[in-house]
Amino acid sequence: MERFKVSYRVKASTLRQAQEVVDWVRFEQSVELPPDVLDDAIKETIVGQIEELAEEEAPFYKAVVSFPVDLMGDEITQLLNVLMGNVSLNAAVKVVGLEWEKIQDLFRGPRFGMDGLRALWGVSPQRPLSCTALKPVSSSAGKLGKMCYELALGGLDIIKDDHGIANQPWAVFEDRLRACTIAVKRAWEQSGHRAHYFPNITATYEETLFRYQRAAELGADGVLICPHLVGLDILKRLSAHPARLPIMAHPAFSGSLVQFDGGFSHAFLYGDLWRALGADFSIYPNVGGRFTFDGEVCEAINRSCRQAFLGFKKSFPTPGGGIEAKRIRDWINLYGSDTCFLVGGSLRRHPQGLQAAARAFQQALQGE
Amino acid sequence: MERFKVSYRVKASTLRQAQEVVDWVRFEQSVELPPDVLDDAIKETIVGQIEELAEEEAPFYKAVVSFPVDLMGDEITQLLNVLMGNVSLNAAVKVVGLEWEKIQDLFRGPRFGMDGLRALWGVSPQRPLSCTALKPVSSSAGKLGKMCYELALGGLDIIKDDHGIANQPWAVFEDRLRACTIAVKRAWEQSGHRAHYFPNITATYEETLFRYQRAAELGADGVLICPHLVGLDILKRLSAHPARLPIMAHPAFSGSLVQFDGGFSHAFLYGDLWRALGADFSIYPNVGGRFTFDGEVCEAINRSCRQAFLGFKKSFPTPGGGIEAKRIRDWINLYGSDTCFLVGGSLRRHPQGLQAAARAFQQALQGE
Repeated sequence: MERFKVSYRVKASTLRQAQEVVDWVRFEQSVELPPDVLDDAIKETIVGQIEELAEEEAPFYKAVVSFPVDLMGDEITQLLNVLMGNVSLNAAVKVVGLEWEKIQDLFRGPRFGMDGLRALWGVSPQRPLSCTALKPVSSSAGKLGKMCYELALGGLDIIKDDHGIANQPWAVFEDRLRACTIAVKRAWEQSGHRAHYFPNITATYEETLFRYQRAAELGADGVLICPHLVGLDILKRLSAHPARLPIMAHPAFSGSLVQFDGGFSHAFLYGDLWRALGADFSIYPNVGGRFTFDGEVCEAINRSCRQAFLGFKKSFPTPGGGIEAKRIRDWINLYGSDTCFLVGGSLRRHPQGLQAAARAFQQALQGE
Repeated sequence: MERFKVSYRVKASTLRQAQEVVDWVRFEQSVELPPDVLDDAIKETIVGQIEELAEEEAPFYKAVVSFPVDLMGDEITQLLNVLMGNVSLNAAVKVVGLEWEKIQDLFRGPRFGMDGLRALWGVSPQRPLSCTALKPVSSSAGKLGKMCYELALGGLDIIKDDHGIANQPWAVFEDRLRACTIAVKRAWEQSGHRAHYFPNITATYEETLFRYQRAAELGADGVLICPHLVGLDILKRLSAHPARLPIMAHPAFSGSLVQFDGGFSHAFLYGDLWRALGADFSIYPNVGGRFTFDGEVCEAINRSCRQAFLGFKKSFPTPGGGIEAKRIRDWINLYGSDTCFLVGGSLRRHPQGLQAAARAFQQALQGE
């Protein structure tokens, strides 16, 4: 029976304790019965097998457990269940890697990917992309459209909705979508620069599908989605949807998975898993921003988005937080040009307004 | 502008630090912009307002923040985003309560509820319900059906699929559903006791809807679902689905939300939120089982499932772990009869087999 390996980081005080924990995991994440009531055949084939267990850096141990590929059936949800179902209720076991090639049929990766989007949008491989968010929530659709117009005139590559702008009465989805797609077109006609508008389509699953379709129909250039609010499978579903828009994934509601001793490592979740599921862009909280990711974690996410990974296209790591015009060259030197930089509040502080702020940022980004 | 309050437990070393954290939360979970770039009007209406901040038990502080009701729009996903979106990326703020009456239009509660199911199934209010899981995964549909038949003959109230039994080749959904619904009917005809079969329908969102429908068509009595694998909104969606089957919610993949200093409190998630969304049963890992919930947490979940809560029907707290025939009277004395007890591996150890084990458990449960 073909098997696939899952790599964990286990927190334990001794090797013996780590062994006990992993022993629990291999039964809990497969048959959910104790050894004494199981046939030997099941224990040897269906139950997880410990392939490796070694001390890493105290108090952490590396464990590799193999499970039968058939345990997954044919669903992302059941893969997530094998990886972090009941085990999520125990704090000491974190998934850090997966033998992806054994289960690659479950995935397709990003539809466009980094190179595809550069080609589609005519952006040189030598430079990073820029992105900013329309906010604050409570702005009318007209005001968001005006903001979008100014930012597009300023030359930014991507203008997305704030992920907290959903379907509130101030700017319901349809109105906002119209206002912003028109704004981008007007700015394009006027300046020759084509910015790309990504509305936030996060909603219930079925409504998300509908908004994806509407976004394409009204001429949006991509979508923003918080997959952990909708259900992770939505990424895979949209990446094969006939409406064909690029997908930018936002980490809202995902933090608990990375912030404790269980769950997933940052690079596994925001890099490998989101990319395998079909995210073209992976937004994460940059070091030095309002959140807590450190530099090493950010680099690990960047690597996971870009490195060779089955036959999947690359995704754009999209760090947000601490990104501003005067430091952008430093960030580019650090992260490289295969990055989409998400600039936020700092644009609002420019004395000549949003358009000038966007232009200054874009020029700094392009090294002009 | 109408507002609703969210109660948090904040981990901090001083009141001043707690104040800083909550100040961050009220901006981050609304406008996502710093105060210096915002109009006063927005700061006073759209931004969260601190209604209360006080030390609880060191190192924890209680904070109450109010947000405008309109911030939610009309979606569960956006409510979750306001409660634990970006803040999930910071470890120190846990949602423990909500001013539900202000946003109750978003919810309907359980369709059947505790009293409705007792009436439907003819179970006296004086006794708890019993439940067990068909396992292990890798058993054929025929074998699961046989197991189901024996457990039904033994007199159990509910027989559910293990939540790790999805659509694997050994027993695909449709085959298993047929085998087990037939088994329950055969046992009914033979013994006069009607057990209730709940297949696991956890899958991608659209497939879950399909399986819910199929479960009803083939005569299942309810469904098991892991809402955190599918997307939490699925509970609300199914609780209004025309197929009308009771819903048992399983906590797989939810653990990270309760296991760290952020996320949700146990009672808020497995009690209030699941109940508001429409779960008729709330499975949780019982104290003394294989997991880590303590007695106080279990009691708090039980209370949240049963207490007066808007006009919502009660849900059945469904503790699993450490439940066995010889201790069941103690559990009933502790938790009361408004409980559904999930008995597991211990049934497999009975010298006379599953049917005798189920009978012994059911008799002990009913005090016979």
